[in-house]
Amino acid sequence: MAPSLSIFFLFIITFCVTLTAAAAGHYSLQTFFPRPAYQSLIKHAKTRKPKLPFKTRYFPQTLDHFSFHPKSSKIFYQKYLINTQYWHKGSPIFVYTGNEGDIEWFAANTGFMLDIAPKFRALLLFIEHRFYGESMPFGKDSYQSAKTLGYLNSQQALADLAVLIRSLKQNLSSEASPVVVFGGSYGGLLAAWFRLKYPHIAIGALASSAPILQFDKIIPWSSFYDAVSLDFKDVSQNCYEVIKGSWAELVAISTRKQALAELSKAFRTCKSLHSTASVLEWLWTAFVYTAMVNYPTEANFLKPLPAYPVQQMCKIIDKSPSGETKLSRAFAAASLYYNYSQTENCFEVEYEVDPHGLHGWHWQTCTEMVMPMTCSNESMFPPSGFDYKRFAEQCRMKYGVLPRPHWITTEFGGERIEKVLKRFGSNIIFSNGMQDPWSRGGVLRNISATIIALVTEKGAHHVDFRAATKDDPDWLIQQRRQEVEIIQRWLDEYYVDLRHA
Amino acid sequence: MAPSLSIFFLFIITFCVTLTAAAAGHYSLQTFFPRPAYQSLIKHAKTRKPKLPFKTRYFPQTLDHFSFHPKSSKIFYQKYLINTQYWHKGSPIFVYTGNEGDIEWFAANTGFMLDIAPKFRALLLFIEHRFYGESMPFGKDSYQSAKTLGYLNSQQALADLAVLIRSLKQNLSSEASPVVVFGGSYGGLLAAWFRLKYPHIAIGALASSAPILQFDKIIPWSSFYDAVSLDFKDVSQNCYEVIKGSWAELVAISTRKQALAELSKAFRTCKSLHSTASVLEWLWTAFVYTAMVNYPTEANFLKPLPAYPVQQMCKIIDKSPSGETKLSRAFAAASLYYNYSQTENCFEVEYEVDPHGLHGWHWQTCTEMVMPMTCSNESMFPPSGFDYKRFAEQCRMKYGVLPRPHWITTEFGGERIEKVLKRFGSNIIFSNGMQDPWSRGGVLRNISATIIALVTEKGAHHVDFRAATKDDPDWLIQQRRQEVEIIQRWLDEYYVDLRHA
Repeated sequence: MAPSLSIFFLFIITFCVTLTAAAAGHYSLQTFFPRPAYQSLIKHAKTRKPKLPFKTRYFPQTLDHFSFHPKSSKIFYQKYLINTQYWHKGSPIFVYTGNEGDIEWFAANTGFMLDIAPKFRALLLFIEHRFYGESMPFGKDSYQSAKTLGYLNSQQALADLAVLIRSLKQNLSSEASPVVVFGGSYGGLLAAWFRLKYPHIAIGALASSAPILQFDKIIPWSSFYDAVSLDFKDVSQNCYEVIKGSWAELVAISTRKQALAELSKAFRTCKSLHSTASVLEWLWTAFVYTAMVNYPTEANFLKPLPAYPVQQMCKIIDKSPSGETKLSRAFAAASLYYNYSQTENCFEVEYEVDPHGLHGWHWQTCTEMVMPMTCSNESMFPPSGFDYKRFAEQCRMKYGVLPRPHWITTEFGGERIEKVLKRFGSNIIFSNGMQDPWSRGGVLRNISATIIALVTEKGAHHVDFRAATKDDPDWLIQQRRQEVEIIQRWLDEYYVDLRHA
Repeated sequence: MAPSLSIFFLFIITFCVTLTAAAAGHYSLQTFFPRPAYQSLIKHAKTRKPKLPFKTRYFPQTLDHFSFHPKSSKIFYQKYLINTQYWHKGSPIFVYTGNEGDIEWFAANTGFMLDIAPKFRALLLFIEHRFYGESMPFGKDSYQSAKTLGYLNSQQALADLAVLIRSLKQNLSSEASPVVVFGGSYGGLLAAWFRLKYPHIAIGALASSAPILQFDKIIPWSSFYDAVSLDFKDVSQNCYEVIKGSWAELVAISTRKQALAELSKAFRTCKSLHSTASVLEWLWTAFVYTAMVNYPTEANFLKPLPAYPVQQMCKIIDKSPSGETKLSRAFAAASLYYNYSQTENCFEVEYEVDPHGLHGWHWQTCTEMVMPMTCSNESMFPPSGFDYKRFAEQCRMKYGVLPRPHWITTEFGGERIEKVLKRFGSNIIFSNGMQDPWSRGGVLRNISATIIALVTEKGAHHVDFRAATKDDPDWLIQQRRQEVEIIQRWLDEYYVDLRHA
């Protein structure tokens, strides 16, 4: 459950797609920027309240931990969810390090923490990330410009966690309670980084699907899209080839005079299309997100989907009549992603809303979260490079700021990060499922006796964080059992230490 | 050599003195704030250039590493000194983590690094701290208000180091060169914290006289002044009692009508006094600074002083005619601090200039570097408590900001800091001399096999950093030898690791 790289993804496609698009000479980048969705988010927060066993609280948080201007000490209210029903004073505190979306969404998709809370008598905290959900430092003006958004970044978020956790423990008069942090995806990065930078506050971290190596030049830039493609190729060579061939057909149609009308019809759009680029994005989104959430059971993280949805998509492609074009087969496959629930009569290809308030992620990618990605010849996407200058210029035009592409590796460690983890880190689990393309940026082998990689061949994006179901396969049950055992070990050691102190 | 807690000290006396003063009903706090000295600093930098074997360079540094407003990416020029005469590509880089003063001052007082550079074939870097010396982000407006000063803090300074070191290594094409950081006093805090937060950049840290436990409630608040007092008491019980008794005499004189004229004469002031509080501060400064720099050889760090100046001060007190008042004896002793060089015909009791540009430290103490201090009944200073509210209100009045007294312990670890160092730290030497009152806030026992405390009974404020002299006592020679051996071990391990990578 939990996290979302959905937003990560919006960022990714920016690269590959725009370059392709530029090559085809048709598309403009604008399409791929998330649309301002703050209002829809608020509406969403007000209308769709999942029934979760948490109380909602608001913490008076400092705006800027790292400077001391008069306005730096402005207070904003950071939302968190709390469950104390299993907790006793002195017993553990499990913290979900919220990422790029409203916190209820992560709480609803991280049933694992609720599942294990009784065993550990753990207090549960889900802390919302600043500038997401209701935790808006400047209310509805929070996204107005770089002047307000400037305070949205990972280091401020980590400091928020430190301050909030310390204060809460004081208020609970339970300073000796060990804290374990849990996070998935970007939240997983936060959890792992928190353990590295604030080991005095968290005794361990479970970082699920955290692409900690996805920055700068640590791993090959083509890794992500190669992994998406491999998910499809592994199911069916034909499926992979159909998708790979569909883009040329799309480009060919795009050159025709009636392209927009033709595509509007073929893609059953609710409203007439204004740009052919949206079709590319719409397909692309379906394939990448489906690869990410290629879960072994029916689930509803980003969209309702069947078990192993990549297999289902390929079944659609492989079984389609031989006379059909590759593009129409790709459309049929993508429809599974957008309409598995069979509730859509037409598709909002251009105006998909952003129910989870993820658009802040675009800002983050334009500042510190620069993860260069390319599409190699082996991928099922059109080949493309990474044009940093162009990317930077787009960020400058949109926000008036330039990215700092080497900052994350300067702050948290770059090419030597695994060595650093080995020597200075401890008590971190990096869990990854190889179906998830983000796994390629993850830690995939044990680094030391206490920096453990739990890798599952059939796992997908932080599948381990989802609530247990009766249909869970053995490998998933086993993975979660290992996580519980390791966390138990951390806690045992902590309490032994405490008694000897 | 190196660092200076002189500024620390300006801060300390703020507490004890004002409280005493308030009790006596005479003094106002204003006296104790460092006076704006930016211009004198610049003049100083231009006129008094010590001949040092370094080249001066300026690095284009980012103003705000932790936010992304349009103005956060403003560049300022951070000064550093470099010596490459012993260095070969791949060999170590020794970095002095500059603290609250101009960098030449620290370079001139950290001869130890120059002494050992040939043995290690080390490149030497002395990096100036932002907002000190010439490294002024807003030129002569840097100290104008909290709007500019807001960027002056330790975390920004640590990030400056990370960015500068990484960039320099790239420019030298020597990314494999191991980096060891050295710092004294506040610079020692920076060195130790840098090793904790940026272990991927520095393989080890020598933190000399770093009062890492001086924050929040980690050690008793009376430790510092008790230690100053003990320095004097250990030399002579009479000396301690004379100084302890002198304050009451000063307060008694202050109640008289002719107090200012009387004191101006008794203290041989160059200009007539405006406030009796300055006399208190003047004496206080002399005793505390002399305890800090109670070096075993003649030296000139803050002022020219003889070997073991506390002994010399007590000799003056003990040998003075029995008819003299305690206050006049205290004055005679303090004169050693202000006039050992016998060049002063009168004393600038109220308008002592700030040649090293230390006044930025006052801002730092009013924001994050809150080190509560009190004077106990056992100290030779008038007993006093710590009134946080009053302190905070004074900061608010002066700068328009409030201190964050728990921030440093949240960011770097508080009461459990030694445990944290034990579990997560490695390759740090904490060196302390017990004559130095700051040693009470230092790490005084080995924490692990790689977090080593080197403690000398007769050592003073980062005496180990001073250049070797022919008069150095054995314990100092031995201490420096141990430091060299430990650093050699870190480097050997690093190169072995590198070969096996």
